[in-house]
Amino acid sequence: MDNSKNIVYRLGSGCELDDIVVGNTYEVKVQGFAKFGTFVYLNNHVKGLIHISNVKSDHKEGETLYVHVNNIRDNGNIDLEEVALKEGYEIKTVQCQKISIRLSDLKNKVGRNVNLQAEVAQIKQTSGPTIFTLVDETGSENAAAFIEAGKRAYPEVELGDMVSLSGEVMMRNGQLQIEVSYMEALTDEEKEQVKERIVKATEERARPKDIPFLIESEVLQKLKPEMQKVAQILRKAIFTNQPVILRHHADADGIVAAVSVEKAIIGLIRAEGGDQDTENHLFKRAPSKAPFYEIEDVTRDLDFALRDNVRFGQKMPLILMMDNGSTEEDEPSYKVAKVYDLPIVVVDHHHPDESIDKYLEAHVNPYHVDGDFGVTAGMLGAELARMIYPDIEDEIKHFPAVAAVGDRSEAPEREKYLSLISDKYSEDDCKDIALALDYEQFWLRFNDGKEIVKDILNVNNNPDRHKNLVNLLVQEANSAIDEQLKTSLPHVKDSVLKNGSHLFTIDVEIFAHRFTFPPPGKTSGEIHDLLCRKNEGKPVVTLGIGPDFAVIRSRGVLMNIPQMVRELRDEIEGGGVNGGGHLVVGSIKFVEGMRDIVIKSLVEKIGNFTTE
Amino acid sequence: MDNSKNIVYRLGSGCELDDIVVGNTYEVKVQGFAKFGTFVYLNNHVKGLIHISNVKSDHKEGETLYVHVNNIRDNGNIDLEEVALKEGYEIKTVQCQKISIRLSDLKNKVGRNVNLQAEVAQIKQTSGPTIFTLVDETGSENAAAFIEAGKRAYPEVELGDMVSLSGEVMMRNGQLQIEVSYMEALTDEEKEQVKERIVKATEERARPKDIPFLIESEVLQKLKPEMQKVAQILRKAIFTNQPVILRHHADADGIVAAVSVEKAIIGLIRAEGGDQDTENHLFKRAPSKAPFYEIEDVTRDLDFALRDNVRFGQKMPLILMMDNGSTEEDEPSYKVAKVYDLPIVVVDHHHPDESIDKYLEAHVNPYHVDGDFGVTAGMLGAELARMIYPDIEDEIKHFPAVAAVGDRSEAPEREKYLSLISDKYSEDDCKDIALALDYEQFWLRFNDGKEIVKDILNVNNNPDRHKNLVNLLVQEANSAIDEQLKTSLPHVKDSVLKNGSHLFTIDVEIFAHRFTFPPPGKTSGEIHDLLCRKNEGKPVVTLGIGPDFAVIRSRGVLMNIPQMVRELRDEIEGGGVNGGGHLVVGSIKFVEGMRDIVIKSLVEKIGNFTTE
Amino acid sequence: MDNSKNIVYRLGSGCELDDIVVGNTYEVKVQGFAKFGTFVYLNNHVKGLIHISNVKSDHKEGETLYVHVNNIRDNGNIDLEEVALKEGYEIKTVQCQKISIRLSDLKNKVGRNVNLQAEVAQIKQTSGPTIFTLVDETGSENAAAFIEAGKRAYPEVELGDMVSLSGEVMMRNGQLQIEVSYMEALTDEEKEQVKERIVKATEERARPKDIPFLIESEVLQKLKPEMQKVAQILRKAIFTNQPVILRHHADADGIVAAVSVEKAIIGLIRAEGGDQDTENHLFKRAPSKAPFYEIEDVTRDLDFALRDNVRFGQKMPLILMMDNGSTEEDEPSYKVAKVYDLPIVVVDHHHPDESIDKYLEAHVNPYHVDGDFGVTAGMLGAELARMIYPDIEDEIKHFPAVAAVGDRSEAPEREKYLSLISDKYSEDDCKDIALALDYEQFWLRFNDGKEIVKDILNVNNNPDRHKNLVNLLVQEANSAIDEQLKTSLPHVKDSVLKNGSHLFTIDVEIFAHRFTFPPPGKTSGEIHDLLCRKNEGKPVVTLGIGPDFAVIRSRGVLMNIPQMVRELRDEIEGGGVNGGGHLVVGSIKFVEGMRDIVIKSLVEKIGNFTTE
Repeated sequence: MDNSKNIVYRLGSGCELDDIVVGNTYEVKVQGFAKFGTFVYLNNHVKGLIHISNVKSDHKEGETLYVHVNNIRDNGNIDLEEVALKEGYEIKTVQCQKISIRLSDLKNKVGRNVNLQAEVAQIKQTSGPTIFTLVDETGSENAAAFIEAGKRAYPEVELGDMVSLSGEVMMRNGQLQIEVSYMEALTDEEKEQVKERIVKATEERARPKDIPFLIESEVLQKLKPEMQKVAQILRKAIFTNQPVILRHHADADGIVAAVSVEKAIIGLIRAEGGDQDTENHLFKRAPSKAPFYEIEDVTRDLDFALRDNVRFGQKMPLILMMDNGSTEEDEPSYKVAKVYDLPIVVVDHHHPDESIDKYLEAHVNPYHVDGDFGVTAGMLGAELARMIYPDIEDEIKHFPAVAAVGDRSEAPEREKYLSLISDKYSEDDCKDIALALDYEQFWLRFNDGKEIVKDILNVNNNPDRHKNLVNLLVQEANSAIDEQLKTSLPHVKDSVLKNGSHLFTIDVEIFAHRFTFPPPGKTSGEIHDLLCRKNEGKPVVTLGIGPDFAVIRSRGVLMNIPQMVRELRDEIEGGGVNGGGHLVVGSIKFVEGMRDIVIKSLVEKIGNFTTE
Repeated sequence: MDNSKNIVYRLGSGCELDDIVVGNTYEVKVQGFAKFGTFVYLNNHVKGLIHISNVKSDHKEGETLYVHVNNIRDNGNIDLEEVALKEGYEIKTVQCQKISIRLSDLKNKVGRNVNLQAEVAQIKQTSGPTIFTLVDETGSENAAAFIEAGKRAYPEVELGDMVSLSGEVMMRNGQLQIEVSYMEALTDEEKEQVKERIVKATEERARPKDIPFLIESEVLQKLKPEMQKVAQILRKAIFTNQPVILRHHADADGIVAAVSVEKAIIGLIRAEGGDQDTENHLFKRAPSKAPFYEIEDVTRDLDFALRDNVRFGQKMPLILMMDNGSTEEDEPSYKVAKVYDLPIVVVDHHHPDESIDKYLEAHVNPYHVDGDFGVTAGMLGAELARMIYPDIEDEIKHFPAVAAVGDRSEAPEREKYLSLISDKYSEDDCKDIALALDYEQFWLRFNDGKEIVKDILNVNNNPDRHKNLVNLLVQEANSAIDEQLKTSLPHVKDSVLKNGSHLFTIDVEIFAHRFTFPPPGKTSGEIHDLLCRKNEGKPVVTLGIGPDFAVIRSRGVLMNIPQMVRELRDEIEGGGVNGGGHLVVGSIKFVEGMRDIVIKSLVEKIGNFTTE
Repeated sequence: MDNSKNIVYRLGSGCELDDIVVGNTYEVKVQGFAKFGTFVYLNNHVKGLIHISNVKSDHKEGETLYVHVNNIRDNGNIDLEEVALKEGYEIKTVQCQKISIRLSDLKNKVGRNVNLQAEVAQIKQTSGPTIFTLVDETGSENAAAFIEAGKRAYPEVELGDMVSLSGEVMMRNGQLQIEVSYMEALTDEEKEQVKERIVKATEERARPKDIPFLIESEVLQKLKPEMQKVAQILRKAIFTNQPVILRHHADADGIVAAVSVEKAIIGLIRAEGGDQDTENHLFKRAPSKAPFYEIEDVTRDLDFALRDNVRFGQKMPLILMMDNGSTEEDEPSYKVAKVYDLPIVVVDHHHPDESIDKYLEAHVNPYHVDGDFGVTAGMLGAELARMIYPDIEDEIKHFPAVAAVGDRSEAPEREKYLSLISDKYSEDDCKDIALALDYEQFWLRFNDGKEIVKDILNVNNNPDRHKNLVNLLVQEANSAIDEQLKTSLPHVKDSVLKNGSHLFTIDVEIFAHRFTFPPPGKTSGEIHDLLCRKNEGKPVVTLGIGPDFAVIRSRGVLMNIPQMVRELRDEIEGGGVNGGGHLVVGSIKFVEGMRDIVIKSLVEKIGNFTTE
């Protein structure tokens, strides 16, 4: 062997097989041992073999050696021979720069070796290779790195790292994948540069197109910038592989709002090349028991998110609240979420408390623009969904009308959304769908009921099943309501307050069926509606009273429930009063032992409000 | 190249590599591109390569080209050369018909290429190939189709399709599998023909053998045709890969009935070559909280079934109700199931309401043949299990006796089943097993407790563990019952009704331990039994009263509970009364606020019945 | 062919390819058929092919044939030719003994074929090979046996078998694995011998090093032998791949104790080469709802363990109880566990009942050595953790101090543990962490909250997040406590008992917020603490009364709660009284209808105790 040149090459990390010159001497590191010889690394990823017959001394893993390249075979194997260095040798590093491409260009590079830089958005260990989900400003693709079945490849690369990698682009059935030949995390300096480039361009890509609303609406028009902001945040989450947890009010309006966005996000994921697994890890819809984000809920969400983060290498999620999330009752949970830097976005039509805005990335609420709850969450959700992924428009066009009648909207938007779909759904159809959603959700007990709910909303391409299901659920719901009314009505007590309004009280704990549909709140509402019809034109207040709560429904009385709650809380020592809701519809909680005192005082206050 | 023949061949979909002639010209479609050339399809599944040096023009995916076959290599690679067609060429389609075989013949074709037609009964995507479970009139086998790890092969083929496929039969360790080389869905016309053939033959194969019952019984004999029908339906479900959900009453009789069928179905699945995964996706046993199919239960079953259908390509399930399911209380859930076309089968011994039969495929019930609840569900279940899979007979022979004593059957069948197994189990052994089941199920809280229940029933091949477990559970159950009686008995109130019967009442809410074993119903029963013994020969009625329910136990009073419930419901305005059960054993529900009125009225009615 | 020698060789099970002689005749068994010939086994694992041209007769699977070895190819294929035997042949068995090695030696045998004997500690079927987890006296390693993707290899080998196996040692990324070429279960005789050797050596290896405690403590010193025993049992469980279920009290002390051991066991698993999957199957931490091992809990634990045993080939688990498990209330569950031979180990500081010791392998309890509850479970847990895996010392050094203040220890150990970490955590920091644990566990509802709890305890390498989270939780907890006190205090009733002590009673059911933090027990405690401060120096008793329970807190009264409970139980007929706890802090349960009588009698008894 000729070793006279006295130059030893050190192969740079960007170099590949092609960059090695047969006959040259290289500095290498021992990787491992086999019966037939010693494997060494020429750089971080190019490997060669010193056949047992060419090994000159004993070695340890990781030891540095010098080798002569005898041959590079057709199959890529490199035959090496260990050499002892003469004195006075010189070390030269071989640099091999390659041009980087963007992820969206991969489709044109099938079968080719590429270099690129991207953010690692998920690291999932399969029973075969390790799958790195990469994100850059043009899209997201998977890269597979294989060391050994089920073993984590490149363990030094972590979630959120910016990496430089090279590999071959594979494509079959329209699905692209990079087979990684080499990957390394960028240094902090390089990282900032690449990150800035990617973030900026992703923001741009996530910006929704400016499309007109389905209907004309002053309130919606004013909300447009904030809705676009929310759409952009959600699109960006999907583009950067951040999971979205959608928490929503478990009633028809809330479900409609949430399913709109669910459909849009799933559509977007699919359009980006994702499959069912991608959907399941990137999106979760969860109806909430309470009309706010309970500590128990955020605790569970966080517990799961942290586990997924540790076990499946997933990013921490973004929280999206719909028909929910805009009041101070949400604050304790928001504080918890903020400890973990979870971004929170709210789309709600309940009267908002300003105090919570400091926790939010964005907050769409008609009250911010002089609208009110008549522009329901379901309307907002459907329009938002169109911004996120315009192609789902046809499927969800009837959702806002369902939400409108479900939430008894009296806003002008109601009629417009109804007439938009009047060729396919009558107002009664919409009412039926809304009631079917409420009834089914009751039995789903805060599961999302994914496919059943889609059937009720007629987005499963099975209109007959939709019709049969809704008809059945409406029939069952009405028969349950009838039974409840038949049982409760004989026990309703009637009186007239000093402001002339009729007060009806019913003990919904002992004079109504429990743990069944309709639950106490809806039972009170149904009684109220019936008594309003019987007392046409008169101011009516209905109290559904339980052991430690009362549901308040009213018509024609200019009451302010939040104010009454505050007063009762201050005035009744040891009453444990709290609660809230809208001005004239809400509920109040207290400790059981103070029920009579609280109710008496509440009734007195109600009697002091003016009637319409 | 010789292109003079002017004939271009179009390779039919049934053709394979062997059917290609070197030197001929073929019409092909571009499949994809590699560095070294262009891949094309000669028909839907035979692929060849035009080496880069033989490509004559630029192409797009899916484009039609014409090629000359230069060579077919030993490894199956086809070397092609792109050609331009001369004018006046003629296209001929090459047809390659193969003889189809049946799935049960596969075992004789290992290592051979076969063609067959079958129904797709499941499509499961693994991290490797896509597994199509095929069903024909002779059996069920899996076919593996591989495109790329984790990618769905033949996405156009859907669950329930009739397909034609070819592939190689592989066999190792007695497990057969087809490695699919080609598959396509049949046209509607072909489909009907194949389907009819398969359905007809499967029905025949599913028909159970006519075997005598374990004992002589007039009632069973009369029920035989309907039981055979149920057995056939269940066998067919397994043969055609349709999941079975078994909902059953959560008491000893119900568990025994259900585990009999569980054992038979698992046995049948194994005999058909299925493994643990097959078992888990084809069969689920679920004890029901209520003595009927609650809306909440059907909602959950449906939610899960739809998810499995979408995610794992499973068929929608069949519902089997045991010791449960024959009354009008089941109707709302049956209606829901019917929207999704789920077949429902009932095996029950409660007094049936005719109104539900319209929802059922089959309904085994002793009341249909002048029998009564003395022929218990556990007896029916064990005999049915033998029809489904005769080989389990020895294992479950003692089940009917356990059910008989557990449900206090007084039918003649009781003694016959007891004497059948008297060499191995005494009547006391059976009582112990039944009590152990009741006690354990209470703590299992409506989980099926799969392996523990098998230990209690001594079908886990571990008789020592069985004995120790049953002894322990019986001891714990009895000590809990003693404690409950000691607490409750001092509070029992005694009176004599005008028909001379003794009425005992106990408030099981405030004078018994709650949320523990025995629960209120069993507590009432134990008190009743004890007071019956103390009042030997006299008519006795025991009411276990809760805040909104009462449990009724009686002896020697010819009462009719369902009739009393109907009357109370009509007579007591706002009482919210409902309930039911057997004639002389049952329960009644009402709203808490009307408890005193309802109980007073109930007691009066009881006093009006004649005593024995 | 030359068949004249008339000797037929039978290849022994220890033989390999190398031991076969070309030209000799062997007895073989038919394994299967292929197009091109018949595969046969020369012994249990060496396979050869009789090419179709060399097959002389028709055969069935399993049939015995005789073959001549024509050739052994470079790739290991053996070419055979079927021969008919001449009369008078002789059969000779070829024995091939190999030297066995130990599992810890595998790392020096990479790329080599080895023989070894070991216990099968888990059998897991992957979608690829079957993974046998092997254990011997030197460690645990995985062996992969492959027959067909997803098929169980060596189905005759069962969990717990002692096996002899040979295979090649593979190593990549520092992870060893044996690729099994042959495996067989040892005969009973061989088994005993090997088992004894392994058990004995494993016991020795599991013995913890004798390290000094973190602090000087007489009580700990006396407990050392029993703690070492527990450490050895747990280390042995990990070494032999037996899952550990850790059930613990769901308060700060219990969590601290349990997380200490969790950290140690995970550390040990990792040090032994295990990964996240190993962790998840070998260790589960489960907070218990009740302060003892409820029947419902053991039932669930057992149900899951049996399923894992059947489905994933796991060993039945060991139960470790911490801050929990030492009283007779645990007995019913222990009895259940014993039916399944589950070993149980207790580390507790509650006053122990001797009656349970017969169920336990070991029991660490300060009361056994004249200590008391002031040496808390958290202290014991942290010291035990150091014995199990000394390397975690630094991480958990502050745990005992948190436990001490959390459980209000007044033992001398409290100050020592506090001063040990005073440079990093003040006493107030420890109090905050303890309160944060209590508050968070309330919302976790008996989930272990794995990662969140680690953040609270500052063992997640994120001190900022730790600090923010603890601050937030403390603030929320205190504000919830303030609200509860504000609501309850006005309803507290005051009286003076005949022994001069102040009795405060509060109905925590109707005068406190329910289903929120603080729950009734803590609410009573907070009220008691506040009233103690207001009544400095006086004896104070506080009763928090619910519908069927009362929480007892006291200061300065020498009461004996367990004794009172026993007396009330005997004296009040139909009271259903039970309960317990420490001498001066505890709770009592009764049936709701007897509340007034029980409370009256309880108060009278309290008034009879001397005050300090």
